[in-house]
Amino acid sequence: MRNILAVGSLAFDSISTPAGKAERVLGGSLNFFSISASFFNPLQLVGVVGEDFPAEHLKFLSSRGIDIAGVSTMPGKTFHWTGEYGQDLNEAITLSTQLNVFEHFNPQLPEKYRDADYLFLGNIAPELQMRVLEQVRKPKLIAMDSMNFWITGCRDQLLKVLPRIDLLTINEGEAKLLAGESNVILAAEKVLAMGPKALVVKRGEYGAFLFFQNEIFSAPAVPIRKVIDPTGAGDTFAGGMMGYLASHGVGLERDALRKAVLTGAVMASYTVEDFSFRRLQKLERHEIDLRLEELQRTIRV
Amino acid sequence: MRNILAVGSLAFDSISTPAGKAERVLGGSLNFFSISASFFNPLQLVGVVGEDFPAEHLKFLSSRGIDIAGVSTMPGKTFHWTGEYGQDLNEAITLSTQLNVFEHFNPQLPEKYRDADYLFLGNIAPELQMRVLEQVRKPKLIAMDSMNFWITGCRDQLLKVLPRIDLLTINEGEAKLLAGESNVILAAEKVLAMGPKALVVKRGEYGAFLFFQNEIFSAPAVPIRKVIDPTGAGDTFAGGMMGYLASHGVGLERDALRKAVLTGAVMASYTVEDFSFRRLQKLERHEIDLRLEELQRTIRV
Repeated sequence: MRNILAVGSLAFDSISTPAGKAERVLGGSLNFFSISASFFNPLQLVGVVGEDFPAEHLKFLSSRGIDIAGVSTMPGKTFHWTGEYGQDLNEAITLSTQLNVFEHFNPQLPEKYRDADYLFLGNIAPELQMRVLEQVRKPKLIAMDSMNFWITGCRDQLLKVLPRIDLLTINEGEAKLLAGESNVILAAEKVLAMGPKALVVKRGEYGAFLFFQNEIFSAPAVPIRKVIDPTGAGDTFAGGMMGYLASHGVGLERDALRKAVLTGAVMASYTVEDFSFRRLQKLERHEIDLRLEELQRTIRV
Repeated sequence: MRNILAVGSLAFDSISTPAGKAERVLGGSLNFFSISASFFNPLQLVGVVGEDFPAEHLKFLSSRGIDIAGVSTMPGKTFHWTGEYGQDLNEAITLSTQLNVFEHFNPQLPEKYRDADYLFLGNIAPELQMRVLEQVRKPKLIAMDSMNFWITGCRDQLLKVLPRIDLLTINEGEAKLLAGESNVILAAEKVLAMGPKALVVKRGEYGAFLFFQNEIFSAPAVPIRKVIDPTGAGDTFAGGMMGYLASHGVGLERDALRKAVLTGAVMASYTVEDFSFRRLQKLERHEIDLRLEELQRTIRV
């Protein structure tokens, strides 16, 4: 079994959506990513939490085959994001970002992590993503996520990381912003020219595009009748993808990537059905398989 | 060979899009629908034009296997629509609608049209759609389109037509408006409960959903690098669908409907590449087959 090494944020989220509110629930890219991927494959996490972070949650992660040796507890408070969604559930509005202990996060990999086969650089500063990249020896596949904040604020550092990764997962608005291009296909082509060998453009309820070797895979989203909270959908998506690839021991291979994208879409579809990762915590493997089969049926001709 | 009978508008369009402008070019649902369908199957048209409508265009339609015996020329001017698109190319803003001769349009079917096998009720007043419906004998398949204007203004008449048709094609915003429901899946289910046996929800650059017999087909859009003018895309889509079904002599059958939706998506993708139906006029059959094969590859797993 190959390990997935993941770095990202462990956080509290306060969220308001048309369906309700959730105050100070657990979130952060690393939480969503790792819980999602853990349905398929073991993980190793690198992250930081404050003294207010619940110990039982770290225990919960451990119980799911997630190695938390690389998660350090620092004096101070845990990262806290506050955001809301309007009728357009595809886009979050950030109301406040309290970095807290995350402000001085300097990811240090335990020695045993340096041989990871699959590396996921969650949505953190590109400079920190680079530091993690420099500590791993020879991963089979490197994927990363980013967001508007880094695309606008740390563009130069981001452009240094992109040529060193295999797979970039960003959403449609981020791809257009990064490329400076309003057509999504042209934007994707420009982003690929920045270095990543494959690109997943997430489009919320409209599915996702996979761009790889001059081919486009147009992945549908799972048709969802009631979206409660889209927070974490993107990281859950990435977790499903990486979990699929790692558990099959494959890297950048066309057919496997396409199935990985569908797996990501299925995992994301469960996340949005409740606040935080509540739905994922109750999720069972047979439900994943069922929805994956249903999703494949929606594109069968 | 079975005939497609189609009713709708023949018009002049004045259009402004981020890519440019076109003044008084030919348009109207019946033009887009029939030119698109004529790649696959003969048609019979019912419509009305004013004295200013170019005779050579009617000749062009004839040259494509389109029977124009049901198109009457009335004293006065042809219907003229003026609209524009902003950065969101998925939604047109109507600036003016000069109905002209269309105001007194009373569709009369030539006797030979009454045995049509495939009937397409283009986007006109539901009352007129009903009048056409009452003049046909026993069509194998009845499809129809509608729009916001009729959904809000003639809801009662529209609700009388819906139980009598097989296939409704509307866009996502129209489906939500008709159902009074913001979730597209729930909206589709409510619309199906109004009577049509199958429903296609067009989502512009995001593709289309086909709802039929408790199954959802998630059709991708053709990835387009440069959209010039989306006007007529929906009617072209319907033309490709009906053309496919009629040329194969099939009605509401799952696999055929799915392929018909993909054919519609391909035809629409060509329409948006230029103003009016200029691109369709230059289009060759092998280009359709090529793009259809490419589109199918974007969803193959």
